[in-house]
Amino acid sequence: MPTDKPKLRIGLIGTGFMGKTHVFGFAAAQRVFDLPYEIVLHTVADRNEELAADAARTLGFAKSSGDWRSLVADPEIDVVDITAPNAFHKEMALAAIKAGKHVYCEKPLAPLPEDAQEMAHAAEAKGVKTQVGFNYLCNPMFALARTMIEGGELGEIRSYRGLHAEDYMADTEGPFTFRHDPAGGGALADLGSHALATAEYLLGPIERIMGDAVTVIDSRPDGKGGRRSVEVDDVGRAFLRFASGATGSIEASWIAMGRKMQHDFEVYGSKGALVFSQERFNELHFYNAADAAGRRGFRCIEAGPDHAPYGLFCVAPGHQLGFNDLKAIEIARYIEAIAGRGPEPFGFRAGFRIQQLVDATTRSARRAAWVALDEQPAFAPA
Amino acid sequence: MPTDKPKLRIGLIGTGFMGKTHVFGFAAAQRVFDLPYEIVLHTVADRNEELAADAARTLGFAKSSGDWRSLVADPEIDVVDITAPNAFHKEMALAAIKAGKHVYCEKPLAPLPEDAQEMAHAAEAKGVKTQVGFNYLCNPMFALARTMIEGGELGEIRSYRGLHAEDYMADTEGPFTFRHDPAGGGALADLGSHALATAEYLLGPIERIMGDAVTVIDSRPDGKGGRRSVEVDDVGRAFLRFASGATGSIEASWIAMGRKMQHDFEVYGSKGALVFSQERFNELHFYNAADAAGRRGFRCIEAGPDHAPYGLFCVAPGHQLGFNDLKAIEIARYIEAIAGRGPEPFGFRAGFRIQQLVDATTRSARRAAWVALDEQPAFAPA
Amino acid sequence: MPTDKPKLRIGLIGTGFMGKTHVFGFAAAQRVFDLPYEIVLHTVADRNEELAADAARTLGFAKSSGDWRSLVADPEIDVVDITAPNAFHKEMALAAIKAGKHVYCEKPLAPLPEDAQEMAHAAEAKGVKTQVGFNYLCNPMFALARTMIEGGELGEIRSYRGLHAEDYMADTEGPFTFRHDPAGGGALADLGSHALATAEYLLGPIERIMGDAVTVIDSRPDGKGGRRSVEVDDVGRAFLRFASGATGSIEASWIAMGRKMQHDFEVYGSKGALVFSQERFNELHFYNAADAAGRRGFRCIEAGPDHAPYGLFCVAPGHQLGFNDLKAIEIARYIEAIAGRGPEPFGFRAGFRIQQLVDATTRSARRAAWVALDEQPAFAPA
Amino acid sequence: MPTDKPKLRIGLIGTGFMGKTHVFGFAAAQRVFDLPYEIVLHTVADRNEELAADAARTLGFAKSSGDWRSLVADPEIDVVDITAPNAFHKEMALAAIKAGKHVYCEKPLAPLPEDAQEMAHAAEAKGVKTQVGFNYLCNPMFALARTMIEGGELGEIRSYRGLHAEDYMADTEGPFTFRHDPAGGGALADLGSHALATAEYLLGPIERIMGDAVTVIDSRPDGKGGRRSVEVDDVGRAFLRFASGATGSIEASWIAMGRKMQHDFEVYGSKGALVFSQERFNELHFYNAADAAGRRGFRCIEAGPDHAPYGLFCVAPGHQLGFNDLKAIEIARYIEAIAGRGPEPFGFRAGFRIQQLVDATTRSARRAAWVALDEQPAFAPA
Repeated sequence: MPTDKPKLRIGLIGTGFMGKTHVFGFAAAQRVFDLPYEIVLHTVADRNEELAADAARTLGFAKSSGDWRSLVADPEIDVVDITAPNAFHKEMALAAIKAGKHVYCEKPLAPLPEDAQEMAHAAEAKGVKTQVGFNYLCNPMFALARTMIEGGELGEIRSYRGLHAEDYMADTEGPFTFRHDPAGGGALADLGSHALATAEYLLGPIERIMGDAVTVIDSRPDGKGGRRSVEVDDVGRAFLRFASGATGSIEASWIAMGRKMQHDFEVYGSKGALVFSQERFNELHFYNAADAAGRRGFRCIEAGPDHAPYGLFCVAPGHQLGFNDLKAIEIARYIEAIAGRGPEPFGFRAGFRIQQLVDATTRSARRAAWVALDEQPAFAPA
Repeated sequence: MPTDKPKLRIGLIGTGFMGKTHVFGFAAAQRVFDLPYEIVLHTVADRNEELAADAARTLGFAKSSGDWRSLVADPEIDVVDITAPNAFHKEMALAAIKAGKHVYCEKPLAPLPEDAQEMAHAAEAKGVKTQVGFNYLCNPMFALARTMIEGGELGEIRSYRGLHAEDYMADTEGPFTFRHDPAGGGALADLGSHALATAEYLLGPIERIMGDAVTVIDSRPDGKGGRRSVEVDDVGRAFLRFASGATGSIEASWIAMGRKMQHDFEVYGSKGALVFSQERFNELHFYNAADAAGRRGFRCIEAGPDHAPYGLFCVAPGHQLGFNDLKAIEIARYIEAIAGRGPEPFGFRAGFRIQQLVDATTRSARRAAWVALDEQPAFAPA
Repeated sequence: MPTDKPKLRIGLIGTGFMGKTHVFGFAAAQRVFDLPYEIVLHTVADRNEELAADAARTLGFAKSSGDWRSLVADPEIDVVDITAPNAFHKEMALAAIKAGKHVYCEKPLAPLPEDAQEMAHAAEAKGVKTQVGFNYLCNPMFALARTMIEGGELGEIRSYRGLHAEDYMADTEGPFTFRHDPAGGGALADLGSHALATAEYLLGPIERIMGDAVTVIDSRPDGKGGRRSVEVDDVGRAFLRFASGATGSIEASWIAMGRKMQHDFEVYGSKGALVFSQERFNELHFYNAADAAGRRGFRCIEAGPDHAPYGLFCVAPGHQLGFNDLKAIEIARYIEAIAGRGPEPFGFRAGFRIQQLVDATTRSARRAAWVALDEQPAFAPA
Repeated sequence: MPTDKPKLRIGLIGTGFMGKTHVFGFAAAQRVFDLPYEIVLHTVADRNEELAADAARTLGFAKSSGDWRSLVADPEIDVVDITAPNAFHKEMALAAIKAGKHVYCEKPLAPLPEDAQEMAHAAEAKGVKTQVGFNYLCNPMFALARTMIEGGELGEIRSYRGLHAEDYMADTEGPFTFRHDPAGGGALADLGSHALATAEYLLGPIERIMGDAVTVIDSRPDGKGGRRSVEVDDVGRAFLRFASGATGSIEASWIAMGRKMQHDFEVYGSKGALVFSQERFNELHFYNAADAAGRRGFRCIEAGPDHAPYGLFCVAPGHQLGFNDLKAIEIARYIEAIAGRGPEPFGFRAGFRIQQLVDATTRSARRAAWVALDEQPAFAPA
């Protein structure tokens, strides 16, 4: 789709499920939004030339490479998009930053907060635009919730309950994977990160955390006929203290049998409340204490053109956005940020923050004591 | 996205909301599915050169034209995609068929069943592949419902309730539009068509209909300071007799205040039941009478990779498809049909059938008598 | 519980499930409400002395009788409560009226409208107070709905959907019973009567009906090893025209597999809508079109002390009334009417009306033509 | 209602809302269940003779007294039922036990666990039957949940989430009451007690607790024109460790704006899950991992005769029990226990246990450390 717009050339590293999802997102963002750039799918890199060439064909990239370093080095590429396994995120991102590229990295930025900090630091020092993939936050109903909270529609915010529960690790016979690696794995890291991100997105900074972390399935098949011990949490919980004075809790579980996407929140204020479930993410339930007596109740607001940018996808309410649409919104906002039209929606600094929160929760659980976020290594901009 | 696949060159007529939705759909279908063709957005036509040129830029077509006839005549174009106002559907489609093009036409195929019949007839005579846009039917949960019904999971099907209710015409001060035109307008035509299509998709052919049609808002602003009388139905209802022996009902309303997308159905069989609402279209509720005593209940099945082609959009259940994803599925199936890999999912013959059903309902309401579908002008293939 | 209040002595005929339910209701009404009378469970009658004596012991009546006529003749008895099989309703009620008793009769008043008319006529001529058991109408949320409709909170009422679906006749091997008797049986008579009663309770008089009646299970075990042909409807439907100008529909089914209590309604007006399901009968869902843009949605109002007489049962909202509580409300209102403190909440005239509506629906279905309610034998007060 | 059964003579102390609810419960229990005794409402006591005499008339007691001690001393009375303010529970109960009466006491048994222990101890030493009012546990759907858990239908139980949230203290201008008294007040004591009781009812003993307790509204009107400082918790939370190895959490809040009865739980096992909300307490949602692929989902089981003792209230499923029906079940079970037909369903020992759990949660919150239940003063039977 040639246009008069300046080109933004994307180099994608990694061609698995998230790589494909990113490509869907770039394509949809370009169709749905009036972006400041023409997006060009320039090069895709994978472990070897053959895989990369296949991916280029399937995903629609002009070039391919079996070496991610050559992609990073290519002066034609503007944005390096990292969907490779977590263990590579840091090295790839730092190389891309050093090469002056904007960097879009799937979550987690890095399992260890100090690594995430280093990455955020490097990006800010270099002045490149960064993004970590927290697509749930791109839901128009999240924006509505935050607008309502900030606008005082709920009055003073008093308490919060957040969840992210799924069941993809519920099977005792599910194999040991990188997600079970003690350095950065676990339900808190994988799903709690989302629950914590949503909590801060809605209520602002968390100051203190009391964590709880439980390993339920303590060994898993090691792929060689034996079993390997698992130390990471299958269920994590936290009590929260927000800087605003509100308190709350979150829970993360990847063994919540039957749950496919229970990324839920409840916000209680002095004048109203909000209830949301990602299982029905085109709805937001709102209780307005100012409604007439005998007529009060949680009302089910259905997403529609009143809730930007829904209207760019569909002119009629109730038709519903899908998961991939949220990814398109995430990408569109990032591209706006690259063009200087708005703040980075969820940059590396935010990604580092989330790793701090996860780490604080895990450490708190280990110590059985409250952990203040200021106990964390301070983020030191250059 | 150049590939080795043969090219399928699209000529789009009309650049309004549905035109944009189709372009989203073509793009997404190409990304998500392994289509037999490379889709090329070749030419877009609109009322004049300027509008068309703008649309080409925005939507990503290589060429533009202010004259739809030249688009139809262009030998490079394989598929003519008609999203122009309903009144033009017949003329455009017949011209495209005559030119040997495959034709994709937004619903309704034509307001009058005899026109729709003529179009279906022409397409079959010429041997081109056609499609009418009934995207709700492309929901994986509809496929699941039909599979369950056909596979006997509900036992003998006994009764059916269908709905399609929205509220976009609920405002008495909403202006008179082409949808209020007595020749083919009304809630039954606009929304009842969906309800009837879903009924036949799930339970097979309807044999007889008793209709009910009610005008609630009998005049609307004419745009010139006065009001214009409205004769079409704001609410339509029908009792149904299916060839299978099942009976049922549907209702269509565009003044159902508060409803944004109540395209719902309930199917009751001798062994189970299904309940669905388009307001939560990633769910299907299933009652299995064979469940253990004291443990029976409607279970909420969430869409996931078990329900093809969901897995092509997302590898994890519960993440949810959106409205535009349904459009992508619709288009992908059409393109498969063009390649001869499957039947036309919803060709002109089906579009004609829907117009017959709508017309039968409306005539029945007028006569206050059952109308058999075989009273309709029989479809006469060449 | 001796009090200074005048005594109201009850004579109960029939000791099956409904008899027991009535006794629960009398007891609860007396406890919960400040009734104008002290209720005395005076005599219970059943088919023979022994059964009656047992029932007196179990249910707490002072006396018993094997002959309902002696109960009716007993000058000490003030109210005759008839829960005997439907076939006896007329004879018993007329005898009781003749004896000057107030009469409380389970629904249906009588299968044939002319019988129901005769009973209503007799009661009015004699000046006794009557009641037919339509307990769903006693739900505080029904009162709320009617208050909202009458108070204009929904604007002009435009359309209505009503249902009453259960599955207790879904089993093909369920035996032939009196409910399958062509004279007055069927789903419309048993359940449609409730749906029609609710429709008129909320929207006022129905003027015309187009009915649909379907026999799905056309024979049932006759209890003697054979099968007996069934002619009554398993599913009934109707289009409705209300005197107010609103239109609507109802459906009744006793073969709706999985449904236990789908007595539902949806009311659509020019300013709002109401949605209710008896499956969650302590809730009423209200859409208010006047809510702020982007904040509109159906709100779930939970029953509470704002909705009289809920507060007499429980001081806190959300605790929920049960089915038997509705029966207590029904009885309390009847006793108020006997004391002259209010109108008969659902007297024999109303019971007759319901039989007219059921009969009109059935006749309309047979004729396949609209039936006006004024075609009915007019009710002729003495 | 005279019978041949032995009489069980009730002496009620306190005539407020809970007193009335108990009387409803005694009356309904007697009607609905075939109890081993004839219940006689013997004497009611209140602060003075006049109030007591009024209550006797209204509630149906034969005698009244302005002195609870004389009621306790009355040799004719079998059961002393205490619904007086919490502060009197201990003194009244100990006196009644000393007099050899069975004692039914509203919750909390006593604010301080050592007092509750003393009461439990005294009752066991004397051999009288006791009961504390935990009516939520009497819901047939709770029994179903426990049956399913104990029967292994969910496999190994892994995690638990419990809630009890309401909003009756959400108003900053709500007055200071005895519930705000630092000795035993707060949301954890009032509502958390229910959440903890449900957790142990379903999953068995809790071994360790990490608590969180937050005061949100730190002063309330003192009734004299000023404000009084509030120290008790408005929101309480806890992480839980069960003896079974399962872990979980509960939350209690009385400032959860919009919530009227969010007494909810979710239980996750290796083979299935249960989800329940008291807002719809006639439903239990069950996920069965053994259901067929593509057909799995939480199923909504509606209460019915399969779930004893529902069938004693109503022969048909889906008709729903109400709050007062739960109270009747609670009382019926207690009376069975008095007759030696079953264990005390929720005796003083259980009431003491709950106070221990609440106390452990509060102490843990204060210390910010896990509290083991065995740190509690051990219960020392005589």
